[in-house]
Amino acid sequence: MARSCVGLLGASGETGRSILEGLLEDGNFDIIVLARPASLSKPANVAFKDKGVQLRAVDLGASEDSIVSALQVPLATAAKKAGVQRFVPCGFAPAMPVGVHMSRDQKEVVYNHVKRLHLPYTIIDVGWWYQFSFPKLPSGKIDYVVGLPGQRIPGDGNVPSALTDLRDIGRYVAQVIRDERTLNAMVFVHNEMWTSDQIHDLLEQLSGETIPREYASAEEYERQIVEADTKLKDNPEELASSTIQKVASQYYLSWGIRGENTPEYARYLGYLDGKKLYPDVKFTSFESYLQEVVSGKAKGVYQDSRPLFEKANKKAH
Amino acid sequence: MARSCVGLLGASGETGRSILEGLLEDGNFDIIVLARPASLSKPANVAFKDKGVQLRAVDLGASEDSIVSALQVPLATAAKKAGVQRFVPCGFAPAMPVGVHMSRDQKEVVYNHVKRLHLPYTIIDVGWWYQFSFPKLPSGKIDYVVGLPGQRIPGDGNVPSALTDLRDIGRYVAQVIRDERTLNAMVFVHNEMWTSDQIHDLLEQLSGETIPREYASAEEYERQIVEADTKLKDNPEELASSTIQKVASQYYLSWGIRGENTPEYARYLGYLDGKKLYPDVKFTSFESYLQEVVSGKAKGVYQDSRPLFEKANKKAH
Repeated sequence: MARSCVGLLGASGETGRSILEGLLEDGNFDIIVLARPASLSKPANVAFKDKGVQLRAVDLGASEDSIVSALQVPLATAAKKAGVQRFVPCGFAPAMPVGVHMSRDQKEVVYNHVKRLHLPYTIIDVGWWYQFSFPKLPSGKIDYVVGLPGQRIPGDGNVPSALTDLRDIGRYVAQVIRDERTLNAMVFVHNEMWTSDQIHDLLEQLSGETIPREYASAEEYERQIVEADTKLKDNPEELASSTIQKVASQYYLSWGIRGENTPEYARYLGYLDGKKLYPDVKFTSFESYLQEVVSGKAKGVYQDSRPLFEKANKKAH
Repeated sequence: MARSCVGLLGASGETGRSILEGLLEDGNFDIIVLARPASLSKPANVAFKDKGVQLRAVDLGASEDSIVSALQVPLATAAKKAGVQRFVPCGFAPAMPVGVHMSRDQKEVVYNHVKRLHLPYTIIDVGWWYQFSFPKLPSGKIDYVVGLPGQRIPGDGNVPSALTDLRDIGRYVAQVIRDERTLNAMVFVHNEMWTSDQIHDLLEQLSGETIPREYASAEEYERQIVEADTKLKDNPEELASSTIQKVASQYYLSWGIRGENTPEYARYLGYLDGKKLYPDVKFTSFESYLQEVVSGKAKGVYQDSRPLFEKANKKAH
């Protein structure tokens, strides 16, 4: 296969790291990590050089704390001017319609900008992470990796949702971005389908503990969204934790109650089905991932943000 | 083929009439024309009964002058409750991205509502009408059918645009709505590709007249949009003519300058290509349509709105 050159913005984020690893593992890509001038000397970026990755400063005229979607608009414009052959905006989320989730709607702004530019694109969504898919154990022994707020089970616990190991995302990306079938298209990839109750059953089986099950209704999540919106308006100093409370509730409503995070609903929205395109991609099964978790060998995600998650977690209960 | 039941809102509009004729011609559909209670006794609606079409009152809780997109939101909600198997929102326009055209953006609101409902859908776009595709002749002999404002040629006149005879739309719709391949998808159908200069050449050839060619730049259309926006804000009594000025300029920019109204760009946006799906559909060639026009046998569109078009036309020059 001819080598392709990939520019990667956000390589030090959770999804960005997975994509970088997936492209390196594949071996057919020349990778340029894009970073803001002020970030070039950060240890995470310096470390990329040791992996044979180029580092390049990109000035997008946006401030340090700009949200990813704001950075992507000037990046897409620059990509169009540079004749980039395929732009992959930041999707990498569960399948959702427009108008039900704050982050999804911010991404739609980028997608529409890309389309107005007539810039070749591929939108990749990946379902819900394994890493956010399981509850704490009563013994506390897996607290070291539990992240998102909300230990309760959305709805009746019987809604199937598409799960993907964060570490497998890059592997899918390496397949998708060299595939002509996915040019100017949306692709939905995932590892396995699980319901919340099935996950609880499996974790009980693997740990030998009994996990209390508390179910949360749609109304409860709607109430939390209203509460978060009020806080966002009145207490801007609680921006981060209120935003987490809001987006988490919107996710639970979408995948846990309305059942939108499935290959079927993604197909309904216009996505190609990654399972059909790439039936042979190797991925970690959810069971073996959960075994890692219970055996104390898993790695937490968003480690820097854990205090925030804990705060939002407390508020949500 | 099993008969299907089709409910049709807006059957007395230009596109609605074409769809009704297309479904009747096909012969495999039971048709129910939906009309607001107050409109049931209108002559146009009464006339439908003579064609073997049922008439049914539908109260969408919207006022008489509500725009179609506002009517469609409660209609989609009702369709979901009624278990409608396929909802076809009002598309029937040239291919365009979100964020460049007022009408397209109003439609996006409906599309997103439909998707949040998980209501099965098909979005059908049809390119630009033959009926709005040609200039006046110096002799005035085809003034009887010329409609939209703007006799000038967008850009350099060499941008191909997908044209469809308004009267053929219904024929395509009859194909699309019984096709499983188009369920939960967008479809772009069109008759032929023409550039503005080619159209002028053909009309000169058919009429024996020489048509003066004045070209309008992107900046000129942008200026007209700003002017229309100002009028819309300051002179609400000019709502209709200013809106026509705005949407016409936005159309010319899209199909005449950016070249968005093509099957290729539609494919880029995610549409299926009607030419590939239905290669055998019979349609009127643009040349034979233009012969009708020159011979005085064509029928004008939007006859009731012609004074408005004339007014917008004068303003735009």
